[in-house]
Amino acid sequence: MMQLHLNPKLAAITPSAIRVMHDRKSPTSLDLGMGQPSLLPDPEPFERATQWTRENGCPYAPPAGVPELRERIAAFYGGRYCANMENVCVSNGSQEGIYLAIKALLEPGRDEVLLTQPSYPSYGRACDLEGIRSHSVVLSAEAGFALQADLLLDALTPQTRLIALGSPANPTGAVMQLTEMDRLAQGLLARAGPPVYVMVDEVYRELTFTPEPYPSFMDIYPHTIALQSLSKSCALTGLRLGFFFAPAAIVEAATRAHGLMMMSVNMFAQRVALEIVSVPGALAAHRPWYARQRELLLKTAHDLRLTIIEPQGAFYCMLALPPSLPGSEIMAQRLLDECDVVTIPGCVFGAVGDRYLRLTWAAPAETMTAGLARIAEFLSAD
Amino acid sequence: MMQLHLNPKLAAITPSAIRVMHDRKSPTSLDLGMGQPSLLPDPEPFERATQWTRENGCPYAPPAGVPELRERIAAFYGGRYCANMENVCVSNGSQEGIYLAIKALLEPGRDEVLLTQPSYPSYGRACDLEGIRSHSVVLSAEAGFALQADLLLDALTPQTRLIALGSPANPTGAVMQLTEMDRLAQGLLARAGPPVYVMVDEVYRELTFTPEPYPSFMDIYPHTIALQSLSKSCALTGLRLGFFFAPAAIVEAATRAHGLMMMSVNMFAQRVALEIVSVPGALAAHRPWYARQRELLLKTAHDLRLTIIEPQGAFYCMLALPPSLPGSEIMAQRLLDECDVVTIPGCVFGAVGDRYLRLTWAAPAETMTAGLARIAEFLSAD
Repeated sequence: MMQLHLNPKLAAITPSAIRVMHDRKSPTSLDLGMGQPSLLPDPEPFERATQWTRENGCPYAPPAGVPELRERIAAFYGGRYCANMENVCVSNGSQEGIYLAIKALLEPGRDEVLLTQPSYPSYGRACDLEGIRSHSVVLSAEAGFALQADLLLDALTPQTRLIALGSPANPTGAVMQLTEMDRLAQGLLARAGPPVYVMVDEVYRELTFTPEPYPSFMDIYPHTIALQSLSKSCALTGLRLGFFFAPAAIVEAATRAHGLMMMSVNMFAQRVALEIVSVPGALAAHRPWYARQRELLLKTAHDLRLTIIEPQGAFYCMLALPPSLPGSEIMAQRLLDECDVVTIPGCVFGAVGDRYLRLTWAAPAETMTAGLARIAEFLSAD
Repeated sequence: MMQLHLNPKLAAITPSAIRVMHDRKSPTSLDLGMGQPSLLPDPEPFERATQWTRENGCPYAPPAGVPELRERIAAFYGGRYCANMENVCVSNGSQEGIYLAIKALLEPGRDEVLLTQPSYPSYGRACDLEGIRSHSVVLSAEAGFALQADLLLDALTPQTRLIALGSPANPTGAVMQLTEMDRLAQGLLARAGPPVYVMVDEVYRELTFTPEPYPSFMDIYPHTIALQSLSKSCALTGLRLGFFFAPAAIVEAATRAHGLMMMSVNMFAQRVALEIVSVPGALAAHRPWYARQRELLLKTAHDLRLTIIEPQGAFYCMLALPPSLPGSEIMAQRLLDECDVVTIPGCVFGAVGDRYLRLTWAAPAETMTAGLARIAEFLSAD
C-alpha cells in the first residue's frame, strides 16, 4: 500500500454529490439531475473556428482572453461599473471564476465568506479548498428562497470580505429583486473598512423569466465580481467558456492567478465564443425553448399535485417532499433505485434543502413529464 | 481611487517575465522569445471533432477526462508505475498539472519544494501563490546545466516533499541521464518518512534528440507525477490539452481539486486529442522539422562564433553572454530596442541564468538564422 501524503484541505473535500448522482444513473434513467442542457449547440461557430484554425493554427491566447472577445462581451453584458475590456477576463467556465474570485481576493485566517442556504455547493467548497472560513444565511422557504438583503447585512462580521450569490439561483431558480439589490448595495457601501465584495453567479441570466428585465448587480454595486458563461445559454457546458467582470485592478490580479493556474483559456473555444457573440440574438437563441419547458413544468406539477417552488429563472426547481417522508438523500436514492429517475438531494445545497429535491427542466419535455409522473406516483404511494 | 483588498500572496506575484517580453515585441521583430511553435497544426482532427460536435453537442467531460482518451494516453506514454487510465488526468495544459501537483500534495508551513536553477519559472511561482516554501539547487554551467542527482539529494531537508524537474528542460534543453535518474530514485527511496514526490515536466519528450530513447522518470520511481501536453509536440499551445500521470490515489485527489477549479477540460479539445492519439505517429509528426532546426541552430551558432549550450531536446538553447557585457535583462532589452530581436533574459530562470539569453528555435529557419546573425553582430560590436 503506497503511502499518501496530501494537502489536508483537499483530503477533507468529498467528491461532488451532483457528480456522484450523475455517475450512478443507467442508460434507461429519466435524468432530472445534472444541469446539462439537452439541446444541441449550433455547429456553425465550430465550423468557422475550424476554418480560422486552418489559417492561423492554435496559438496561445493572451492570459485574460482574446481582446476582440473581451470587447464584445463587455459591450454586451457590461454595465455601469464594468463597461470595458479591462473589466473582463475569459475563464475556463464560470467554475474557474468562482475559484479565482476566492483565490485572488481572500487570505486564509483573515477573511471570511458569507453564503446563502440553499446555494450551489461549489462556492463553499472552493472556500474549503482554500482554507477560507465561510458561513451561511438560511433563506426563507416561505419567501421561495429569494434573496433578502437584511438577512445578509445582519450576518456580516468584521471579517466578511466576500458574499457569494447566484441570480437566477441554482438550485432554486430565484431571481434577486431590484429593491433587495439596492438595499444590499446601500448597506454594504455604508460600512467602514475595506469593501465587501459581492460575487454574483449570473450564468443563467439568459434564462430568466421575470416579467421585467433586471439589471446585473454590477450595475448597482462597484465591488461586484459577476460570473458568466456560454455553458447554459448556448448548451455548451463542455466548451468551458466562461468570463467574469470586475473592477480592472481585480481583473488584472485574478488574471495573474489564472495564468499561473492554466496559462489561458483554449483559443479554439474563444474563437467559437467570438463567432457566437458576433451574431445578434445568438446568446438568447435557446430562451424560447426554456420558456416553453417552464410552462410545461408548472402545468405538469400542478396537474400531478406536486409542490414546487416556482422558478423565475435557470432550469431547476425545488420539489417539496411531503413531511411524512424521509430526507432528500434517502428519497433521491430510492427514486433512482425504484423508479429509475435521477434527482439531486436538496441537502447537497445546505441543510435547509433537505426537505426538497432539485429537478432540472433542461431535460427533453417527454423526459421531464415522464419523470415528474413517476415521482408523483412514488410520493403518493409511499 | 478604489480600495483594493487582495490575497497578499497573489499581490506579491509579478506578471510573467516571458509574457512581458512577448508583449513588448513589434510586428517586425525577429521573435526568438516565447515557446510558441511556428508550425501550423494539422486541421484534420479539428474537422473530425467538429463533426462529432454536430452529432453529440458539447457536453461536460468527466472531471478526469474522456475515458477513451485517458486509456489511449496511458497506453502510449504510461510506464511501469502509471500504466492505466486511473493513472491519467486530462488537464488544462501542463501548466495546470504543475499547479495541481503542488495544490494536491502540499500544505503551506509543513511542506517544502526543491527546484533547480535554471528552471522554468512557473514551478516556483506556483509555490509562491500557494504559500509553499521552495529553494533551489544551482546546476553546473560546465555540465551544461544537466541534472546531477547528488546535488538534489544533498539539498533535501526533512520538509522536502516535492522536487520539480523538467526533462528535456526549459530553458536549457538538457535531458536527464538514465544513470542520474536511477541514482535520484534510489536516493529518494532510501529515505525514511513520507515519500518525496518528483514532478517531472516532460512536455518536450517528443522533441528529444539524444542518440538513445530514454525512459520517463515514472518508469523508474513510483512517486512520480509526470506532466505531458500536446502543446509543443503538435503545435497546439492554444488547445490547452495537457495530462498528468501519477499513482491512482493522487490522480483521484488532484481530480477533485481540478473539478473545483474548473469542472473539466474542454470536451472539444479532448475530441481533438483523441483524434490525434488515434493516428500512429501523429504525436511525433513535427519531430523531423525540429531535428533539422536543431542542426541548423548548431551550425549557425558555430559559424557565427556564438557560444551556446548544445540542447539535447525541447526547442530552446542558452546563449552565453561575453563576460564583458552587462547582465541578461539589460542585454535582452537592448537586443529588442536596437536590433528588433526578442530573446528571454536568462535571469528569468534563476540568478545563475543571468549570463545567458534563452533563444527558441521553434521560430521559422530564416527568422532563427537572421536573429542569430543580428545577435552575433550586436555582441561583437558591443
